[in-house]
Amino acid sequence: VSPSPESPRLFIPGPTDVDAEVLREMSRAPIGHRGPQIEALIAEVEEGLQALLGTREPVLLFTSAATAVMEAAILNTVGENGVLHLRCGAFGDKWEKISRSLGRSTSSCEVEWGRGFTPELVADELRRGDYDAVCLTHNETSTGVLNPLREIASVVREAGDTLLLVDAVSAMSAVEVDFDDWGVDVLLAGVQKAFALPPGLAVAAVSSRVYERAEKLPNRGTYLDFLSYRRLLLKNQTPSTPSTAHLYALRRQLQRIHEEGRSARARRHQQMGIQTREWTRGRFRMFADEAFASPTVSCIQVPEGFDVADLKQRALQQGFALGSGYGVLKPTTFRIGHMGEHDSDSLEALLSTLDQILDGPKDGG
Amino acid sequence: VSPSPESPRLFIPGPTDVDAEVLREMSRAPIGHRGPQIEALIAEVEEGLQALLGTREPVLLFTSAATAVMEAAILNTVGENGVLHLRCGAFGDKWEKISRSLGRSTSSCEVEWGRGFTPELVADELRRGDYDAVCLTHNETSTGVLNPLREIASVVREAGDTLLLVDAVSAMSAVEVDFDDWGVDVLLAGVQKAFALPPGLAVAAVSSRVYERAEKLPNRGTYLDFLSYRRLLLKNQTPSTPSTAHLYALRRQLQRIHEEGRSARARRHQQMGIQTREWTRGRFRMFADEAFASPTVSCIQVPEGFDVADLKQRALQQGFALGSGYGVLKPTTFRIGHMGEHDSDSLEALLSTLDQILDGPKDGG
Repeated sequence: VSPSPESPRLFIPGPTDVDAEVLREMSRAPIGHRGPQIEALIAEVEEGLQALLGTREPVLLFTSAATAVMEAAILNTVGENGVLHLRCGAFGDKWEKISRSLGRSTSSCEVEWGRGFTPELVADELRRGDYDAVCLTHNETSTGVLNPLREIASVVREAGDTLLLVDAVSAMSAVEVDFDDWGVDVLLAGVQKAFALPPGLAVAAVSSRVYERAEKLPNRGTYLDFLSYRRLLLKNQTPSTPSTAHLYALRRQLQRIHEEGRSARARRHQQMGIQTREWTRGRFRMFADEAFASPTVSCIQVPEGFDVADLKQRALQQGFALGSGYGVLKPTTFRIGHMGEHDSDSLEALLSTLDQILDGPKDGG
Repeated sequence: VSPSPESPRLFIPGPTDVDAEVLREMSRAPIGHRGPQIEALIAEVEEGLQALLGTREPVLLFTSAATAVMEAAILNTVGENGVLHLRCGAFGDKWEKISRSLGRSTSSCEVEWGRGFTPELVADELRRGDYDAVCLTHNETSTGVLNPLREIASVVREAGDTLLLVDAVSAMSAVEVDFDDWGVDVLLAGVQKAFALPPGLAVAAVSSRVYERAEKLPNRGTYLDFLSYRRLLLKNQTPSTPSTAHLYALRRQLQRIHEEGRSARARRHQQMGIQTREWTRGRFRMFADEAFASPTVSCIQVPEGFDVADLKQRALQQGFALGSGYGVLKPTTFRIGHMGEHDSDSLEALLSTLDQILDGPKDGG
């Protein structure tokens, strides 16, 4: 299908375009949520996710948005010592709001939007308090900032019993991780970003340290209780009826991801980040500090007086959906989501269309 | 497609068979979760759900299993006065466990499995305590019992500020309700039962009394906070990214439901219940008391020594999936789910196949 204003190529920071074959998997007839058919399906999904994330722990499967799993991570790890939120954008802020909505005591360390966290800064912050957990946004979708997860995990591991909870929503599958080796405790994502599936499922790698903690925390509820998810996953089941459509689609997409190879997939995303930043340099300025540049989302700052809404509208007329700036950044930035099924060619098609729009004659002039 | 052991007609008590056209809606390309496209989609879904359930309140849309909404109903209504659970089967028991997992104080009134609740019994129970809420299973899927919701709602409304929370998982769309007129407070369901959609979405009608209560309750969290769902639904949005695939499928299925007519749909289900009970009388015995007979799920008790697993296996070989008995009832019952897309003809095909199996020569004899 050729792109059109009604059915544009999605360069928004999620949901992203879905491969036609993966999309067809969504239409499979439902199967019972107990029994050998679904157990075989879940077993395949688990194998694919464990290889992708570098973990031997079960990767929990939630029929929900990632928001629910951000909440679950707090419910299952944070008690009286409270939680430290590392905030470098709107999604870091959101996680702290979730912790507060659960009545948890929160502290936060904020860096200027457009910058990320160095391991040194995180180490300093951890020396100031004794937290049950620290929350990090791997790739901050609002600003296009990638945080150095491996290095931050290393300093958190040195800080006693503090657990490292990571929102990897717009990074997972596009940025290589070794969950077990790096010592991360929760690594969560919705599947509609770099995974390139339709929204409606979230996944989380969870360390054994988390389960030990959860056992001591009362009133975790039922739907977001990590322990029950693990208990059932060990039988290749889920506690409640899952979205089988999404499990079918995820199985197929994991096959495709492993056919490409996780390193090759990461390189493809890095390359798209570089390509976008090179294009931007001639015209605009990247909102994010180069040291923290994201391989999946570019946040592009426009000069004062530039009409972002007009650019977005003209791109849409050509069949390309761009992302708005997020929240307070809406008037002064736009975003390009270059992830999932996109590659240098599809990105080049977008960028050359933007060139035509920006260099061409103005409408109604 | 003709039924086969690999792809049987589903007569389990959910998930149920999905219409081919509805299933195709699941494969639509994702759209952004903010913007005019999704707002138009949600507006249509809302109109269809409000007409179905007889409410002018927004019907909340959850990307989750119904379990999450059972939990949400407790989180948003139950404070210090605790909750009364009316238990007549496994799903009534489950709801009390959910309340306890949230640290809520619970009381319960249990009737023998196979029986339901009379309004008199509920009125008596409500006189014994001052509860924030009372939880009822509209149609108890484990035993095939339908409770008289309208009459029970009437006695709850007379009992002061106690709110009536109803798990309508295997009843919604198959049993007529007038949510506003009857004075129910939460009426929730997953869509993979009588709605006949793939699992992955849950819906809940919620009264204004619930929102007033929720405003006074702290620590409701984020993903299950009814107030945020209502606030966003008033703009035809959801707080987090929803499963757009399920919204497309639900929109189409609501059109089909209203083409049939909600009363005609209810009569079709009543007729299938009668048909199943008539068939059963000649061979077995219904587990449920006739006064509480369900129009969507029949739980059928077999004589001692009867091999239920063998019957299920033989039916599957003919392309029909029957439901096992639930939990402790597994050795002595089986269940027929007659809901969603099924009608007298498809049910007759199942029942005559069972006749052939039960009357025919035994394998390997």
